[in-house]
Amino acid sequence: MTQEELKKQVGIEAVKYVKNEMIVGLGTGSTATYMINELGRRIKEENLKIIGVTTSKATSKQAQALGIPLKVIDEVEYVDLTIDGVDEISENFRGIKGGGGALLFEKIVASYSKQNIWIVDESKLVKQLGAFPLPVEVVRYGAEQLYRFFKNKRYHPRFRTTNDGKKFITDSGNYIIDLHLEIIADPIILGKELDKLVGVVEHGLFLSMVNKVIIGTKNGLKTLQNDLNA
Amino acid sequence: MTQEELKKQVGIEAVKYVKNEMIVGLGTGSTATYMINELGRRIKEENLKIIGVTTSKATSKQAQALGIPLKVIDEVEYVDLTIDGVDEISENFRGIKGGGGALLFEKIVASYSKQNIWIVDESKLVKQLGAFPLPVEVVRYGAEQLYRFFKNKRYHPRFRTTNDGKKFITDSGNYIIDLHLEIIADPIILGKELDKLVGVVEHGLFLSMVNKVIIGTKNGLKTLQNDLNA
Repeated sequence: MTQEELKKQVGIEAVKYVKNEMIVGLGTGSTATYMINELGRRIKEENLKIIGVTTSKATSKQAQALGIPLKVIDEVEYVDLTIDGVDEISENFRGIKGGGGALLFEKIVASYSKQNIWIVDESKLVKQLGAFPLPVEVVRYGAEQLYRFFKNKRYHPRFRTTNDGKKFITDSGNYIIDLHLEIIADPIILGKELDKLVGVVEHGLFLSMVNKVIIGTKNGLKTLQNDLNA
Repeated sequence: MTQEELKKQVGIEAVKYVKNEMIVGLGTGSTATYMINELGRRIKEENLKIIGVTTSKATSKQAQALGIPLKVIDEVEYVDLTIDGVDEISENFRGIKGGGGALLFEKIVASYSKQNIWIVDESKLVKQLGAFPLPVEVVRYGAEQLYRFFKNKRYHPRFRTTNDGKKFITDSGNYIIDLHLEIIADPIILGKELDKLVGVVEHGLFLSMVNKVIIGTKNGLKTLQNDLNA
């Protein structure tokens, strides 16, 4: 089975957890796209009634085209269930997100969600986080100073750029600096360091946020449960 | 002496620490305005050569009108000296800034400054921080959720508004929520809590950033030294 087929399978599987009248957080990225298509199908064919809360302009566009009713996060009291992809996930349910540039809105929506499901193909599973570059969303003013700081720390920073070589700008008008760390020895300590830094808006470490992970493997689907209260 | 006269006096006093060839961080607010005027005077009358790094669009405008050469923070390696006002300062040199809405850029510039001087009239001195509402700069997406969170925590939040009743928007395109706390029992713990919150870009607690405080009192100027390495 190709990677795309695995992504499609986990997207369809995750939507089985969506029930009538739910407020559903809609993730961003290639895997989430399949999930949103499936939601659109259930709305059309099964008369499913939900409200979607999106995590990016791109996702809003896709959801609108499919006829999924949308609200912004500030119009709802909470989100029942958010389904999103993840760029890398370690054995202890820690993840890196933000490859698609939507980490800030994804983290905001995840924060106000009662349940979070991540959908991945097996290529995203790692022992330790860090091979995937860690995205850090930074205020434009002072971004070069932060870049130098990361460089001095040997975090191997690179500004995210668009195809035409310009600095990528997020939906909130910030830059992204990707840290090419290879191995993150202690994600909790790194997260705290980044949280504290002036000019850092948010980072792509999602450390205790996911309740369920659906993994597409060559041998079928695997669902892991993470007890966040344990 | 009126409060305005005290502000003017500390502004003039602080500029005595500015030396030729320095890169000078220029604060924002009513007290900083006097300091910037004095810098302009020294450039004109004493041929002082400096480069200014501003902390807001308003300050940039004033500095440009006075002929102060400007760079943005990303064009310099560091700032030699930043002079800025502060809305409230406690006995142990902790401050609240952001009454003027420029806390993010002020904190960015202060972070990359070798020396920081705060200039205040004596009305800003307090035993414990908190009577001045603590500004928190927040991403617009999810701001209502943060507001509710602060409300549940009894932090007495209020969105900063403009004169026409609309939500105030910072130079970085964010909102400000002012927390009317009255007393901040532990600024370090509160700072960490705010740093960690998803959607918080920056807060107005400046906890170990100032080297020197110049205070205008009815009995004259007072200068306090803060040894940050102690």
